[in-house]
Amino acid sequence: MVSQTPHLTGPAPAPNVAAIRYELITLGDELLLGLTANSHLTFIGAALGRRGASLTRNVTITDEAGAIADQFRESWARSDVVITTGGLGPTCDDRTREVIAGVLGQDLVFEPAVLADIEARFARLGRKMTDNNLKQAYRFSRGEILPNANGTAPGLWVEQDGKLLVMLPGPPNELHPMFTEQVLPRLAERGLVARREAYVQIRTAGIGESALEMRLQPLLAPHGAALNIAFCAHQGQVDVRLSSPDGTRDEAGLEAIAKDCATLLGDDFVCYGHDSLAKVCADLLRAGEHTLAVAETATGGLLANCFTDIVGASKFFAGGCVCYSNESKMQLLDVPEDLLLQHGAVSAENAVAMAAGVAERLGADYGLAVTGFAGPCGGTRENPVGTIYLALYTPGGVWSRRLSQSGPRGAVKQRAVNGALDWLRRELVRGKRGGSRPPSG
Amino acid sequence: MVSQTPHLTGPAPAPNVAAIRYELITLGDELLLGLTANSHLTFIGAALGRRGASLTRNVTITDEAGAIADQFRESWARSDVVITTGGLGPTCDDRTREVIAGVLGQDLVFEPAVLADIEARFARLGRKMTDNNLKQAYRFSRGEILPNANGTAPGLWVEQDGKLLVMLPGPPNELHPMFTEQVLPRLAERGLVARREAYVQIRTAGIGESALEMRLQPLLAPHGAALNIAFCAHQGQVDVRLSSPDGTRDEAGLEAIAKDCATLLGDDFVCYGHDSLAKVCADLLRAGEHTLAVAETATGGLLANCFTDIVGASKFFAGGCVCYSNESKMQLLDVPEDLLLQHGAVSAENAVAMAAGVAERLGADYGLAVTGFAGPCGGTRENPVGTIYLALYTPGGVWSRRLSQSGPRGAVKQRAVNGALDWLRRELVRGKRGGSRPPSG
Repeated sequence: MVSQTPHLTGPAPAPNVAAIRYELITLGDELLLGLTANSHLTFIGAALGRRGASLTRNVTITDEAGAIADQFRESWARSDVVITTGGLGPTCDDRTREVIAGVLGQDLVFEPAVLADIEARFARLGRKMTDNNLKQAYRFSRGEILPNANGTAPGLWVEQDGKLLVMLPGPPNELHPMFTEQVLPRLAERGLVARREAYVQIRTAGIGESALEMRLQPLLAPHGAALNIAFCAHQGQVDVRLSSPDGTRDEAGLEAIAKDCATLLGDDFVCYGHDSLAKVCADLLRAGEHTLAVAETATGGLLANCFTDIVGASKFFAGGCVCYSNESKMQLLDVPEDLLLQHGAVSAENAVAMAAGVAERLGADYGLAVTGFAGPCGGTRENPVGTIYLALYTPGGVWSRRLSQSGPRGAVKQRAVNGALDWLRRELVRGKRGGSRPPSG
Repeated sequence: MVSQTPHLTGPAPAPNVAAIRYELITLGDELLLGLTANSHLTFIGAALGRRGASLTRNVTITDEAGAIADQFRESWARSDVVITTGGLGPTCDDRTREVIAGVLGQDLVFEPAVLADIEARFARLGRKMTDNNLKQAYRFSRGEILPNANGTAPGLWVEQDGKLLVMLPGPPNELHPMFTEQVLPRLAERGLVARREAYVQIRTAGIGESALEMRLQPLLAPHGAALNIAFCAHQGQVDVRLSSPDGTRDEAGLEAIAKDCATLLGDDFVCYGHDSLAKVCADLLRAGEHTLAVAETATGGLLANCFTDIVGASKFFAGGCVCYSNESKMQLLDVPEDLLLQHGAVSAENAVAMAAGVAERLGADYGLAVTGFAGPCGGTRENPVGTIYLALYTPGGVWSRRLSQSGPRGAVKQRAVNGALDWLRRELVRGKRGGSRPPSG
């Protein structure tokens, strides 16, 4: 295979970064055994994608030395840049450094400064450094160290044969800052990624993948092969990503197409980019100087957690209640006992009482409530497993709606949350436009 | 490469399933671009691993037809079983079915029953079926359909050349039940996975990976190459997985070694297997007929959500409060205003008041509270970002402790939750043993 060799040193001559062959090797029995998620693919793929580059392949293999050597040889031969993750740590199954040095014919040399860092780290944590940590202080003889501010194993940067090898530690809290703060700037310096983002994504909600494709077809089809279109559905949201495979559409051109799509989609359009529904709601709440409180049964804290994942959530988020017992609904949210006895906890009436109760208790402008049966147990003939009642308390009144979800407990919870968030979003958008009609239900 | 060809038809002769070469091809630009997580690797890897089989490799590639064909050819040549995920849906970037049929020289034939299922599904959801859904009703001419109860695209099962191809739809809520209910039983019938689980995992908490290895070394090292040992650290927990690469240690032998490890580890041992800390706490609470309520600031619903992910949580979980404002702490948990003014919300005093308040309000035996600065903003000189105060209210009294976490907001939240859960677990274990001294803090 002939590869477009990137320009690895000197000033960047702005090559076509999309043509650079990136391959990611994620190492670890724990990945293949499903003991831990391969979040490195998600993180590194997204970070490169935002800079116009993309992974041609991600291969996950076992920690076994022979497998590492074989895979690295194969990936190195066909790629311009190989990134590895994992296997740099202190334990006996961490052998990536040694094996790859062997394949590249490099020696490992001891780096006293790294050992000093590791020792200082253990001292700070009040733990004794065990001897198996020593091997992390070795670098490739013709390579550099990428310091690790959040763990013991530094990353390694190796340029050889006109190619680049980047070796990163496995723990995400170590890898993420190392990649963002050290690897991306170095890649940009060498012209291996763009200096800024290079595609357009539209996020939608409340419309299925196939219906969305049909709806956008009149706008997108005329562009033919000059436009790359990728759909990605996840729990009630569908993303559409537009890019220009050959550079014939520049950024402004893509943005114009995306803008037409957004206009066509109306309120089904959530945002450009990757913001979560909760983040979009948060921005709308902050813009309107509104506050929100939530009350949950079936989603059990997941709704509150979506908001509290947002930095600075205390500016708009008053708090939430997770009410698993009738007692807690009465105690925390002032839901009348009579109402619970008459209508049951999974009812529109209770959802409304919860939304109003939490907003009033916490002095919030908006109250969002979710109740229902997440399953797999529970449910009645009238309200089977997957039945969710939402209620939205607003300055203009309080409304409820009913959803039917299917799938395992986790999926029902996530979709109920997304349904609640999307409803709040539509109501906030309508409020911003000055609309006064009740939320669609 | 010579491979141990599995027995694909007739009664299973109990071959060594560990030697069967499984390869997983996960398809989708959205994976390589990091728009969605590769949860299929986690799910399928874990499911096979529990049955004594393991993936030799997972390759993620783009939706592009040429890339699919090349990768499938390569994987098919070196494997006994190839599993693909994704690319079976209705949109223009779903081309896996057509491309792989071409590589295997099979025709695609229309299956009217599948179309009827798809139409019925749309009717149930009250949506109109668009024409791009039609292609999902095609199967391989010499292959079978795996019905999809949760979506439109069925799975495909193809036995050819003494090998097996399983093609699964991308959405996890469709793939998971299809794999568990249809694929695993069929694999077991053909002797391609064990009929039951085949390795031992020990889950630990409160001890680092390298210290754990050193501590277990005297027990594990003597077994040499007859014992496979894999460590996997995640947010305050470390798992150790023991397996027998060549079958010289049978299940009972592995269990005996694991039991010795558990005894040596004492309270740092959490459980055998994969149960979450929340699940272990839940089992201890249920066994003691205790109830729990939680109160959170920094972890913002994540702690409650860990418990409500457990089926039947209402048996032990009374509820929780997420209190982002001082107002909400006073309103929901009866935290005195004076206390908040004197000590601040991020203090041992407030954590104690929250734990006691939520337990008393909801009539629960145990109250667990978390307050702190998750970051990246906030923090004081005394209590910088990452400072977490926990409090545990028990029938024997209430205690607090302070943790210092580092890393991004999400990691701080997760570790604070794990710290809180591990403390509760240790206290419940101690209670079960009849201990009466206060929790270690």
